[in-house]
Amino acid sequence: MNGAEALLRTLAAGGVDICFANPGTSEMHIMDASRHVPELRFVPCLFEGVATGAADGYARMTGRPAATLLHLGPGLANGLANLHNAGKARSSIVNIVGEHPAYHRARETPLGSNVEAVARTFSHWLRTPETTADLPKDAAEAIRAAMGGKVTTLVVPADVAWGEGAEPAPIPPREIPDAEDVEPEPIEEALAMLKSDQPTALLLGGNALHGRGLSLAAQIADASGAALISPFPLARLERGRGRPAVTRLPYVREQARAALEPFRQFILIGTTEPFAYFAMPDDAAVLLPEGAVQCALTGPESDVIDILESLAEAVPGNDSAYPRRPETLQVPAGLLTPDTIAATIAALLPEGAIVIDEGMTAGRGIMVACKAAAAHDWLGNTGGSIGIAMPLAIGAALAAPDRPVLCLSADGSGMYTLQALWTMAREGLAVTTVIFANNAYALLKHEYSRISADPAQSVDDQFDLARPALDWVALAKGMGVPGRRVRSLDELASALRAGFASGGPNLIEVPL
Amino acid sequence: MNGAEALLRTLAAGGVDICFANPGTSEMHIMDASRHVPELRFVPCLFEGVATGAADGYARMTGRPAATLLHLGPGLANGLANLHNAGKARSSIVNIVGEHPAYHRARETPLGSNVEAVARTFSHWLRTPETTADLPKDAAEAIRAAMGGKVTTLVVPADVAWGEGAEPAPIPPREIPDAEDVEPEPIEEALAMLKSDQPTALLLGGNALHGRGLSLAAQIADASGAALISPFPLARLERGRGRPAVTRLPYVREQARAALEPFRQFILIGTTEPFAYFAMPDDAAVLLPEGAVQCALTGPESDVIDILESLAEAVPGNDSAYPRRPETLQVPAGLLTPDTIAATIAALLPEGAIVIDEGMTAGRGIMVACKAAAAHDWLGNTGGSIGIAMPLAIGAALAAPDRPVLCLSADGSGMYTLQALWTMAREGLAVTTVIFANNAYALLKHEYSRISADPAQSVDDQFDLARPALDWVALAKGMGVPGRRVRSLDELASALRAGFASGGPNLIEVPL
Repeated sequence: MNGAEALLRTLAAGGVDICFANPGTSEMHIMDASRHVPELRFVPCLFEGVATGAADGYARMTGRPAATLLHLGPGLANGLANLHNAGKARSSIVNIVGEHPAYHRARETPLGSNVEAVARTFSHWLRTPETTADLPKDAAEAIRAAMGGKVTTLVVPADVAWGEGAEPAPIPPREIPDAEDVEPEPIEEALAMLKSDQPTALLLGGNALHGRGLSLAAQIADASGAALISPFPLARLERGRGRPAVTRLPYVREQARAALEPFRQFILIGTTEPFAYFAMPDDAAVLLPEGAVQCALTGPESDVIDILESLAEAVPGNDSAYPRRPETLQVPAGLLTPDTIAATIAALLPEGAIVIDEGMTAGRGIMVACKAAAAHDWLGNTGGSIGIAMPLAIGAALAAPDRPVLCLSADGSGMYTLQALWTMAREGLAVTTVIFANNAYALLKHEYSRISADPAQSVDDQFDLARPALDWVALAKGMGVPGRRVRSLDELASALRAGFASGGPNLIEVPL
Repeated sequence: MNGAEALLRTLAAGGVDICFANPGTSEMHIMDASRHVPELRFVPCLFEGVATGAADGYARMTGRPAATLLHLGPGLANGLANLHNAGKARSSIVNIVGEHPAYHRARETPLGSNVEAVARTFSHWLRTPETTADLPKDAAEAIRAAMGGKVTTLVVPADVAWGEGAEPAPIPPREIPDAEDVEPEPIEEALAMLKSDQPTALLLGGNALHGRGLSLAAQIADASGAALISPFPLARLERGRGRPAVTRLPYVREQARAALEPFRQFILIGTTEPFAYFAMPDDAAVLLPEGAVQCALTGPESDVIDILESLAEAVPGNDSAYPRRPETLQVPAGLLTPDTIAATIAALLPEGAIVIDEGMTAGRGIMVACKAAAAHDWLGNTGGSIGIAMPLAIGAALAAPDRPVLCLSADGSGMYTLQALWTMAREGLAVTTVIFANNAYALLKHEYSRISADPAQSVDDQFDLARPALDWVALAKGMGVPGRRVRSLDELASALRAGFASGGPNLIEVPL
């Protein structure tokens, strides 16, 4: 078989069952080979940032690598921003990027570029096989590397793909870190903190925020009285009724500091010290209270389960199951305000929903309101590059086809990757997208008011999306997604109910 | 004054009068400084690829550098694909990219990335000033470098921008290559070719395709009988009634070879040897006929005027003005077909129009038909990264506000940067965008049929945009641009007339 087919068979055998694709001519043999590997599903995307964000969403919900197929250096470049986010989320991704044969690379050609240099910045692992025989072996290495929570990029010269004589390669065994690798000293320090009478918080990231990791963390918190806190950038948090309560730090630095201020000790598991997103002339972005003690157990690159198990065993036990909070929420009445919008969404969120959160300033109250909603997963923007919500929703919906997806986006952030709506329509995905339309880059208006004693109208105008206003119902229609603009709380509730019930893609524009 | 203000004053004093901007918090002091420098116009864009493509269009039409303002590594990443195209067009661009202060870069933060590494691949010149005093000096160097047809990137740490005590810097004098730098030997070789009886073509790029360069090239061709040919990737070609006839090589390799086959000698001025875009298993992408002789006078990085003057002086003169062809074209009648569409556009093209060409397979006949249209400029995709048409149209319209812009796009290529429509609406630009809607990546369907003896339906489906079909009239409406779908040749003619007459943005969807 040719290299392209061996590549795809290696991916499929390695557990990669989806490929978000925006190929070009140089990837044509890979596309042709897809006919022989039906267990690897190809999902077409009309912009590369949709493909990479969708792969991120798929990887976050399955824990398995998702693939992308991208066209040469510029195609990869269009996918980088969401690979930046995926890298910060430690998502498992295998990018397949086409490249010219070496003899064509040596020429001055329109599409010639240094593909490896484009890939390097946002790839934890990178390789360009030089022969057809190497291609499946390198693909297997890429999968193994990706499984450890890495963004990997395999650059595939066209002649390496179309060459004959290849065989699928087995995936090399993954190196599981030895239990002895858990360094005893910081564990002892963390235990001392948990047993002390100082107010202590567990700062959690990665796998500590869902599944067994979160259960173990909650057990430690119950037994010790420590609080559970996550940074604002959030890959995946399980929450809602019946799940442990984790406080996510607010984006606004003063609010984040207020949330951290009560604590004198911080145990970091699967994360690093949180900082405000930006340094300011009078504010160097430190968030942790002065004089507080940090104990860093593991960073975001590590699996955290072993660490949590060691801690949970050592903390005086509390075997009671985590209590299921019995409240159910009521749909509120009244005007369409941020508070009533948040309460309405919380009351109507279906059990098992996956919420994608890029509502920016407009969506800030919703997460707090959903604390007591039906159990759900919450997926956020991990790298601060906006334009991830709708792509992430595609990946989440394909990863969990039985679960409804609620995609919260702002009008400004949604514009970066609005092409995602088409893929939702094409694949018939159960995604309800809510666009909060404040006709502005409101975050920037706010930041501008903070740095300028006398903001200029000419500058403020640059952050306006009002002239003309974006019409998201028309944009959705243009891509085959039914949309609706709501003008009252009743209409919002009705649109959400209909959207969740539809089992397909739909969009709700909420004017603010 | 602070660094931000000194930066913008330096840009304005250096002749940079426009900045296509998609800033974030780290660029806020630069935005604030814009109030003091009204001669530098800021144009907001809702996606970075729109900003970089618009800067390219502006630079192609003015010959002066245009600026962009982009947000950190991921924002720059979103602009790279059109910087790739701009680099191949040798357009003059100064990218201003915000960065964190050094102490914040040293931390693990959401938006942290290696901005210089992101910039390097598609920048000919790159610098990160370390002090506020250095910022305007480095900006001046960036402008000087950009003037030579370079994409330059200035990375601006936020504390360097907000720091006080800066002064605008003068632009260092540009090194004009000495006349003695023109190497006499290749000129002699080219002259011998022009005086020989062998069929000879001038292969032209860069400044040889418009203005004085094109006039000189035509003079040489008239005097010597040589043909004028341009490669398919085309930054800017002046053509139409009253302008010299230059044959652009077709995209399809067999057609390109047929166009080149009659010639035994090629003189390359402002370009390099043309190749087909992609190598294929049975076709290594060479286009020039076997045994033909090449004389490479200058590559795309050079100014070509001196060379052309030397040649024109040495070739036996022909002082007659280039004849103005008298034909006027008739609007055809009949069905809506590629040929009648092309003839209609050619007949209705206003004098002085700027045509942006990314019609892909659907638009191929239009350029030939426009050969006898009113005088116009033709701007193509130079780097093969699709999604440049609408951004380029923004830049061209702002560079030449008295000239109508006709933007030809395919439905697939238009989707990469459709956010450009909003900027056209906001700025009230006289751009008529024609979308050829064949509901497919037709080029890829064609390429697939070439590499596969037995194309699979499952693969072909991946190149379909038909389920659902994109509704470009709705998409335009969503961004504030009036649109219309035409169903007959009469409707197309009527829509084009109305669009050109409107003096504002408008969109015409042409089903194929």
